[in-house]
Amino acid sequence: MSTKQKRYFLTEEEIPTQWYNIQADMVNKPLPPINPATKEALKPEDLFPIFAEELARQELDQEHAWVDIPEEVRDMYKYYRSTPLVRAYGLEEALGTPAHIYFKNESVSPVGSHKLNSALAQAYYCKQQGVTNVTTETGAGQWGAALSYAARVFGLEAAVYQVKISYEQKPYRRSIMQTYGAQVTASPSMSTRAGKDILTKDPMNQGSLGTAISEAIELAVNTPNCKYTLGSVLSHVTLHQTIIGLEAEKQMQKTGEYPDIVIGCFGGGSNFGGISFPFMRHNILEGKQTRFIAAEPASCPKLTRGVFQYDFGDVAGYTPLLPMYTLGHNFMPANIHAGGLRYHGAGVIVSQLLKDKLMEAVDIKQLESFEAGVLFAKAEGIIPAPESSHAIAATIKEALKCKETGEEKVILFNLSGHGLIDMAAYDQYFAGNLTNYEVSDEDVRKNIAELEKVI
Amino acid sequence: MSTKQKRYFLTEEEIPTQWYNIQADMVNKPLPPINPATKEALKPEDLFPIFAEELARQELDQEHAWVDIPEEVRDMYKYYRSTPLVRAYGLEEALGTPAHIYFKNESVSPVGSHKLNSALAQAYYCKQQGVTNVTTETGAGQWGAALSYAARVFGLEAAVYQVKISYEQKPYRRSIMQTYGAQVTASPSMSTRAGKDILTKDPMNQGSLGTAISEAIELAVNTPNCKYTLGSVLSHVTLHQTIIGLEAEKQMQKTGEYPDIVIGCFGGGSNFGGISFPFMRHNILEGKQTRFIAAEPASCPKLTRGVFQYDFGDVAGYTPLLPMYTLGHNFMPANIHAGGLRYHGAGVIVSQLLKDKLMEAVDIKQLESFEAGVLFAKAEGIIPAPESSHAIAATIKEALKCKETGEEKVILFNLSGHGLIDMAAYDQYFAGNLTNYEVSDEDVRKNIAELEKVI
Repeated sequence: MSTKQKRYFLTEEEIPTQWYNIQADMVNKPLPPINPATKEALKPEDLFPIFAEELARQELDQEHAWVDIPEEVRDMYKYYRSTPLVRAYGLEEALGTPAHIYFKNESVSPVGSHKLNSALAQAYYCKQQGVTNVTTETGAGQWGAALSYAARVFGLEAAVYQVKISYEQKPYRRSIMQTYGAQVTASPSMSTRAGKDILTKDPMNQGSLGTAISEAIELAVNTPNCKYTLGSVLSHVTLHQTIIGLEAEKQMQKTGEYPDIVIGCFGGGSNFGGISFPFMRHNILEGKQTRFIAAEPASCPKLTRGVFQYDFGDVAGYTPLLPMYTLGHNFMPANIHAGGLRYHGAGVIVSQLLKDKLMEAVDIKQLESFEAGVLFAKAEGIIPAPESSHAIAATIKEALKCKETGEEKVILFNLSGHGLIDMAAYDQYFAGNLTNYEVSDEDVRKNIAELEKVI
Repeated sequence: MSTKQKRYFLTEEEIPTQWYNIQADMVNKPLPPINPATKEALKPEDLFPIFAEELARQELDQEHAWVDIPEEVRDMYKYYRSTPLVRAYGLEEALGTPAHIYFKNESVSPVGSHKLNSALAQAYYCKQQGVTNVTTETGAGQWGAALSYAARVFGLEAAVYQVKISYEQKPYRRSIMQTYGAQVTASPSMSTRAGKDILTKDPMNQGSLGTAISEAIELAVNTPNCKYTLGSVLSHVTLHQTIIGLEAEKQMQKTGEYPDIVIGCFGGGSNFGGISFPFMRHNILEGKQTRFIAAEPASCPKLTRGVFQYDFGDVAGYTPLLPMYTLGHNFMPANIHAGGLRYHGAGVIVSQLLKDKLMEAVDIKQLESFEAGVLFAKAEGIIPAPESSHAIAATIKEALKCKETGEEKVILFNLSGHGLIDMAAYDQYFAGNLTNYEVSDEDVRKNIAELEKVI
């Protein structure tokens, strides 16, 4: 560790009061989500049965670049924001790189990750509309913990479907959700038709985010006064997460530097979009040349090996069809510990941006991610979530390139969450029990081939 | 939870640059520690074989009220300090009390507790003296994690003896220590004479802080260039922890209020002393009437049911004799989940203050502590460490008294750490598997009777 560690904060007055909607500034707008029944472009009203109305409107809004953050949400943001922007001198020294590395530390939120930024917003809009119950899915449990917390804040009942493999690997995230008063069910479960269909075919099914989403949606549409909420992928979730990048932008000004590279780990895209989009706006509007790198797990490589095509967001096909980079909604990701990244597709905004080469993607193997996580813990004193370690690994790659070339590039990455609930995974890593879970070309082809039937 | 939540911080310039040594201001100074061999009052030199010299001097310093914090330690403090002072509107609303409740949130440190405040100082002074290896004991693992982190910062090798019951109950704190590069051994172990003596008599012995201290001291004195470090009890540890209360004092000024009651949980006294002594100084010097309440576990009641007498700080009798409230150094505390509070004695300063009625003590049963912890998590969104929940329980008692009387008292407590590594304990609580572990009068009498032989 370095005693030169330096943190940058914003004053309460400097904390942004609006989220940034990059759709308004994109030259090529994302293609519209499609109603699978009518094959027509989705209207906000089509989403009202599932989502709070304001969230449905935000989802499809391609006009307004700036969206006011409701005062009630800002009040709750103040409880943990601004989050620190940290100059990672320790990591720089450990790598011997001339690069200047910064990270935005979202792990300081009361639930330990960035997920709360959108959970508070979604719970607020539900409450405002008179909703009493919310459902959701969660992988590693970061989103579920955040939604449980946010539901508690706004007096809603929360029901969470947690991917079974994570429910078993990370029992303490379940305990956290329960401490906040949420009901937690391992998915696939026998409580929904979607879950039953899977379990009757495959009783040992370990679950996936796609399956848990199906279950949560099914519960929401069958429960009075209940709405579904989602932790990533969708555009309104990413919108809320732009608070990360908007703060980081102001904090970078205080450092006197501007990022050459911005990096985020990638599950559905909300954390990556959250840190990236406010900076990408300057690429789009002012011709800045910052590079944006999404770090996805090599075992779930939708950005680096998937196809850009309309697909369902869930396994059962309850969602609208989304134009996305996808491995096919039946792709069953390996049981990596970065449960939050085990999702077959990418959000529609990010997918369009990748197609248009406004961003890049890199795949990180599980062992490489843990190696990076341990190096970071020793260098900076914070144990990262396995998801965030993917961003760290990508950062290390770039920083080592700078070491070769001697370039003093400025690299900013998002530390999306801490790994204190993931210590069992670290134990497994130290014991040499983790593997890389390679995905064969055949696996990728097979699921993508099935997509032809979708639309 | 309340959307009125409010946090108070200090600017970097406002962070205190000195620790406060209450011994200088006490009218009745603590009695001196005694060398068990010579029966003479201890001099700093007597402690040099065990502790870094500067720490030994701090231990016995009754003259200087203010001690400069070394710049290298302040640099590391800046990485997480100031910690927030929070007005607990959510807890107030949940209790319906007119009291104004504040808490100092030490859980935001990178290792999740206040322990880092002293670990950094101890590791620094060791490094400065050319020490290469440090040993220590830990209960729940908060101190061990902090020392492992601090050793990493200053380039020292750390060996930690963790109380066996905690090593098994809380495996993930062990993983955290290992991630920072420390060597962790369950205590009692066969690696020391002290451990062997216990295990040969009682192979199923679950350990205690007193035993782990013996092992760590033994390793330190038998290892070249190695010093022992301690997480609580001793006066120099409490000195370092006064950064908590000194910050809180300045932060309370920003609220426009001054505490009527200050509360801390109590294991050896450093967290309690850390939050209390800077305020107690105004009682001593200016006649303020603030009450100070130490919240100890009912299963380890040295303050409420122990005796004030010279006793050893450890089971094997390796330490000097300390004038303390004690249950006898052979007292084996029950296996409560608040592992950090399982210690038979109280520090010499706190013991003198209690004897002189400058502070009070209250005992909290295990179930009451968890009930308080869950209420706090639901009201404030932060899951507290089981140790800290004792302070919360004591705060709730006082806040409910205010509800009866209608008094708007200002209560400040220290949230010494978060409970994210203690979720297994919460699970046990929710499952109804926890008990209160009452201590019989006979148990207390028996161990105290043995003390007659000590001096």
